Amino acid sequence: MIKVGIIGSTGYAGAEIVRILLNHPEAEVIWYGSKSYVDQKYADIYKNFFELIEDKCLDDNIDKLSEQADVIFTATPQGYLAGILNRDILSRCKVVDLSADYRIKDVKVYEHWYGIEHKSPDLIADAVYGLCEINRDKIKETSLVANPGCYTTCSILAAYPLVKEGLIDTDTLIFDAKSGTSGAGRSAKTANLFCEVNESIKAYGVANHRHTPEIEEQLSYAAGKDVMVSFTPHLVPMNRGILVTAYASLKDKNISADEIAKAYEKYFKDEYFIRLLGHGVPPETRWVEGSNFVDIGFKVDERTGRVVMMSALDNIVKGAAGQAVQNMNIMFGLDERAGLNLLPVFP
Amino acid sequence: MIKVGIIGSTGYAGAEIVRILLNHPEAEVIWYGSKSYVDQKYADIYKNFFELIEDKCLDDNIDKLSEQADVIFTATPQGYLAGILNRDILSRCKVVDLSADYRIKDVKVYEHWYGIEHKSPDLIADAVYGLCEINRDKIKETSLVANPGCYTTCSILAAYPLVKEGLIDTDTLIFDAKSGTSGAGRSAKTANLFCEVNESIKAYGVANHRHTPEIEEQLSYAAGKDVMVSFTPHLVPMNRGILVTAYASLKDKNISADEIAKAYEKYFKDEYFIRLLGHGVPPETRWVEGSNFVDIGFKVDERTGRVVMMSALDNIVKGAAGQAVQNMNIMFGLDERAGLNLLPVFP
Amino acid sequence: MIKVGIIGSTGYAGAEIVRILLNHPEAEVIWYGSKSYVDQKYADIYKNFFELIEDKCLDDNIDKLSEQADVIFTATPQGYLAGILNRDILSRCKVVDLSADYRIKDVKVYEHWYGIEHKSPDLIADAVYGLCEINRDKIKETSLVANPGCYTTCSILAAYPLVKEGLIDTDTLIFDAKSGTSGAGRSAKTANLFCEVNESIKAYGVANHRHTPEIEEQLSYAAGKDVMVSFTPHLVPMNRGILVTAYASLKDKNISADEIAKAYEKYFKDEYFIRLLGHGVPPETRWVEGSNFVDIGFKVDERTGRVVMMSALDNIVKGAAGQAVQNMNIMFGLDERAGLNLLPVFP
Amino acid sequence: MIKVGIIGSTGYAGAEIVRILLNHPEAEVIWYGSKSYVDQKYADIYKNFFELIEDKCLDDNIDKLSEQADVIFTATPQGYLAGILNRDILSRCKVVDLSADYRIKDVKVYEHWYGIEHKSPDLIADAVYGLCEINRDKIKETSLVANPGCYTTCSILAAYPLVKEGLIDTDTLIFDAKSGTSGAGRSAKTANLFCEVNESIKAYGVANHRHTPEIEEQLSYAAGKDVMVSFTPHLVPMNRGILVTAYASLKDKNISADEIAKAYEKYFKDEYFIRLLGHGVPPETRWVEGSNFVDIGFKVDERTGRVVMMSALDNIVKGAAGQAVQNMNIMFGLDERAGLNLLPVFP
Repeated sequence: MIKVGIIGSTGYAGAEIVRILLNHPEAEVIWYGSKSYVDQKYADIYKNFFELIEDKCLDDNIDKLSEQADVIFTATPQGYLAGILNRDILSRCKVVDLSADYRIKDVKVYEHWYGIEHKSPDLIADAVYGLCEINRDKIKETSLVANPGCYTTCSILAAYPLVKEGLIDTDTLIFDAKSGTSGAGRSAKTANLFCEVNESIKAYGVANHRHTPEIEEQLSYAAGKDVMVSFTPHLVPMNRGILVTAYASLKDKNISADEIAKAYEKYFKDEYFIRLLGHGVPPETRWVEGSNFVDIGFKVDERTGRVVMMSALDNIVKGAAGQAVQNMNIMFGLDERAGLNLLPVFP
Repeated sequence: MIKVGIIGSTGYAGAEIVRILLNHPEAEVIWYGSKSYVDQKYADIYKNFFELIEDKCLDDNIDKLSEQADVIFTATPQGYLAGILNRDILSRCKVVDLSADYRIKDVKVYEHWYGIEHKSPDLIADAVYGLCEINRDKIKETSLVANPGCYTTCSILAAYPLVKEGLIDTDTLIFDAKSGTSGAGRSAKTANLFCEVNESIKAYGVANHRHTPEIEEQLSYAAGKDVMVSFTPHLVPMNRGILVTAYASLKDKNISADEIAKAYEKYFKDEYFIRLLGHGVPPETRWVEGSNFVDIGFKVDERTGRVVMMSALDNIVKGAAGQAVQNMNIMFGLDERAGLNLLPVFP
Repeated sequence: MIKVGIIGSTGYAGAEIVRILLNHPEAEVIWYGSKSYVDQKYADIYKNFFELIEDKCLDDNIDKLSEQADVIFTATPQGYLAGILNRDILSRCKVVDLSADYRIKDVKVYEHWYGIEHKSPDLIADAVYGLCEINRDKIKETSLVANPGCYTTCSILAAYPLVKEGLIDTDTLIFDAKSGTSGAGRSAKTANLFCEVNESIKAYGVANHRHTPEIEEQLSYAAGKDVMVSFTPHLVPMNRGILVTAYASLKDKNISADEIAKAYEKYFKDEYFIRLLGHGVPPETRWVEGSNFVDIGFKVDERTGRVVMMSALDNIVKGAAGQAVQNMNIMFGLDERAGLNLLPVFP
Repeated sequence: MIKVGIIGSTGYAGAEIVRILLNHPEAEVIWYGSKSYVDQKYADIYKNFFELIEDKCLDDNIDKLSEQADVIFTATPQGYLAGILNRDILSRCKVVDLSADYRIKDVKVYEHWYGIEHKSPDLIADAVYGLCEINRDKIKETSLVANPGCYTTCSILAAYPLVKEGLIDTDTLIFDAKSGTSGAGRSAKTANLFCEVNESIKAYGVANHRHTPEIEEQLSYAAGKDVMVSFTPHLVPMNRGILVTAYASLKDKNISADEIAKAYEKYFKDEYFIRLLGHGVPPETRWVEGSNFVDIGFKVDERTGRVVMMSALDNIVKGAAGQAVQNMNIMFGLDERAGLNLLPVFP
């Protein structure tokens, strides 16, 4: 059994890693790291695990943990891991980081958007961006995976094939994203109270959300040139789910729905966790909730010469914990789907 | 007292007209028209009106009604009013139509998008598009108002000043809209059941929603040339509210947030029902819920050279019943705010 | 105009007093008291009031306030008002207290259930329990009203006529109450985050909720003997609304639904804010949301010899701010409905 | 592999059986029966199963199905199965009926509460009431299981040990139950539309809900005498979950919380799917959502001499499909937990 430690196990993403690994055939959690709940029973914090987990929360001593674990998941605030990670730790165990610390190759871009100094810039080059369906081969070789953001996973996958195939004008790319509230985390903030979120929708982080440079970097690789996009996240009164509606002008007005469909199929046809709905079928977050699936649909708008790309995923699963476990599976040479046979729960 | 008849009073928009007029100082409902509930007590269908309304539902005989009423509101399916309205009726009383029948000047455009034949195309020219803040003067003179759609009110108002002032490239206009579920109406459809809508978000009518030509026509007037836009509506798990996030490239990258703000102020500064939040302040539907306000904010994105225009309203009030009453007030020379001192209800 | 000061104006109940008074014909808020937001614009905290209120928050100096105001509403934590109120203040202005400090006549009972020492027990006798429909005459005479709790208003009104008329065995009284989340207040607590409350229901304060002695005291007056009840509150994933389902054995199995109905009518028939739905009609919170109405229905269960009493109200309106304004109206000899022509908002 | 047919596979309960069996190690669905969707792809109706199920819906020919299947689940309207089932079918395959047709032993009681004639009363004696934790041994021997109702499972399990041990006065038993909206099914009814259910709570079926006699019959067996109870269901704006709050007077005021706890442990200590939270810990539906667990807590109220029993389950899992599969597992001698390692999904 692969021994797993989680630093930040008491946030929503950490708890979802726990949920997934409880049914994983080849991995087990040996360290429930926490900052706020040390010595408390994990199942007292997440009572869904009552009688299923007897462990207490441990601290977040990554050095000690790295001597016991085969892999560490870090679901920690931005900058935290960058401040404590080093090659010693990475020589002892693998790390899947759910924060943004190693996602962006250009440390200046990171420091600009996140407004903090990066404490271990030398490790950035070691990290592989863990978008499994795109970087699978590199993930196999690394001991440090930068697990992608929730919005970014959903956004990049929606546009990747069309960017890669040069079917759209990347100068016109706009991502309008909508997220359930679990993406805001479990810390006590007035803005995230039930009565503040319920029965309302709003945009936030307009033109300056931190997932923007992450989307741009990955799509730039795909395009083979610099890509700059508009990205607007919205908060939706539901627990889980991200929906991305993306817009771009077709390179050529004569590009058909069929050509678009073929581009998606070229890259994703054999991907188990990506489900291609085809032309004119909008995805809905309810159909992926609780699972590691990403549903992608699109619509060619002949009037305007644009294509509308749409994708849906569960922000805590494929957008965080599920993809993290998928990365672990790849890193350890396991079946990529191990532990991830999570069927979407509806209603 | 102005005598009001409502055809289609038992839908959500009709019921909201009732709610507003119950507290209107100079109007009273004399005819609760219905197709499905004739002879039933209105307060048995909408029990919020228990002990407040004793009337029973009447049929939808518009001829008879027009002899008794000073104004008729029609909240009826597309094509219905066009099939029964005539100049006789309009000579006897005013009509505010909440359906789309007289919104679009070019009957071919109407017939193309709605897929039905227009039965009274000669009346279209008589109708005034009832976007009060734009067409106030014309509304005063007409006896037939085409009350704007919910999405269109929200979309047009967000972009109107910038289009009118030529600050944005109208070829790049994209409206990404999100609506609460009351917009889907009260008829029994599986797709609108609680468990189907709750905990999910989806796009629908992608690239072919009927509000598109309505937005385009009005913005074309503002632009002084043909405008074609992308419009994508989404269904959000909340009762009320529409949020529009609109994108366009600035005509000139040097256009400042200040110039944008001034354009909004030029047209809307003195409009009571339009609240300008200013640069960088995204509107939220919760702050307008239950009221006739439209909140508008924007953000200039210097990186991409785009401006993000954002607007929020209550789809049943300013998006339907509230604007209808506002139109009535204008048509009858009343204080435009009469009966509309509805404060936003939060939480 | 009556000059109103609010201490605790930035909680949900305080904000609802503001909403109501903005449309009140004979009262105006002159003091938006706050602990946390002094000097901030009130409309920055509650953006529904953008452009409607220009005032900034003031502190909670009740002495200074009492020299300027005709009436003070206190929506403050338990024990706060008891620590600062005195007869000097009450000689200058009237006070409507939305906390529990003066609701319970026996100070020992208060101190037992609330676990705090009462700092001004001598004032308790001056206070009138502000359940308007029951204590209207006393309210007219007092300058200190103890505004009832949300659960208690709903519970007492459901049972009062049957207790008063001796139709039920008070030893068997059980109140099972369900509340929307606004009752939990606006302070930032993890337990009240959207994702914690949404898609769940739970009981809390089982057998020890502080509203229990308040219900018992009032029903004891009605019964003319000591009444002890079971009271269980539940948290429901909705913003507003309380539903009480109460159970009691009929004194005599032959008591008919008609007799029960007559008892309700005897006490409440002419009460504008109480709507009697009659036998077999369960109230629903949606029909009272946003209004000051209490809807009451009941069902006689001949099999078990019990009557099920059911009542619904909006916890922030009739359960707090609405009743507080109703009390103010009574204290100042105004029309009891002034400012309270709030129609239920649906959907 | 056990071959499974489902009649009524396109309702919510049917779809949940499908979800569970997709991951069941020893069973597979061979027949997706439907009345409304014959010949349509199952995954077109429930798009969460896109790319996971390729089958089309078949009709509901139980004779033909019984020749191919080892077990049939029927999730059909009341009276349907009673009209078509016979001993021939039962000789060929096992049946787990999720309707109420064989739950109640006294056919007159069934006909009284359901208002329909029972077409196969002779089969009632063959049926075993499939409350697994109570009737496990009998379930092993039968070929016809009457799968309990959602409310009844939750209600009976909360009270069973205390009734069985004679700790409570069964004449005082009251069940106040709250259910998510999936319990209302998937058929298109105005009352179940999103906007009608959202932001509201109501009681329904007061004193005459059909689950009442089912609860009474089972608790009568436990008590060894006739038990009559009050049962009130409520509709809650959430997808899944039932919470039962039950009240009863203790037989003796000196009965301690410890004695109550021991009674629960005596019967349920070793039951995997029943989690005993202990004294003073109220269950919450969010902690069982998506799983087959029932969480039970209680509180002794020494003041009133009552015990409050509380239980929570997922109405579609332990309240329907999960228990149905649990019954299948028992009938076929499999591990009772096979396919039911569903961890509660939170948030």
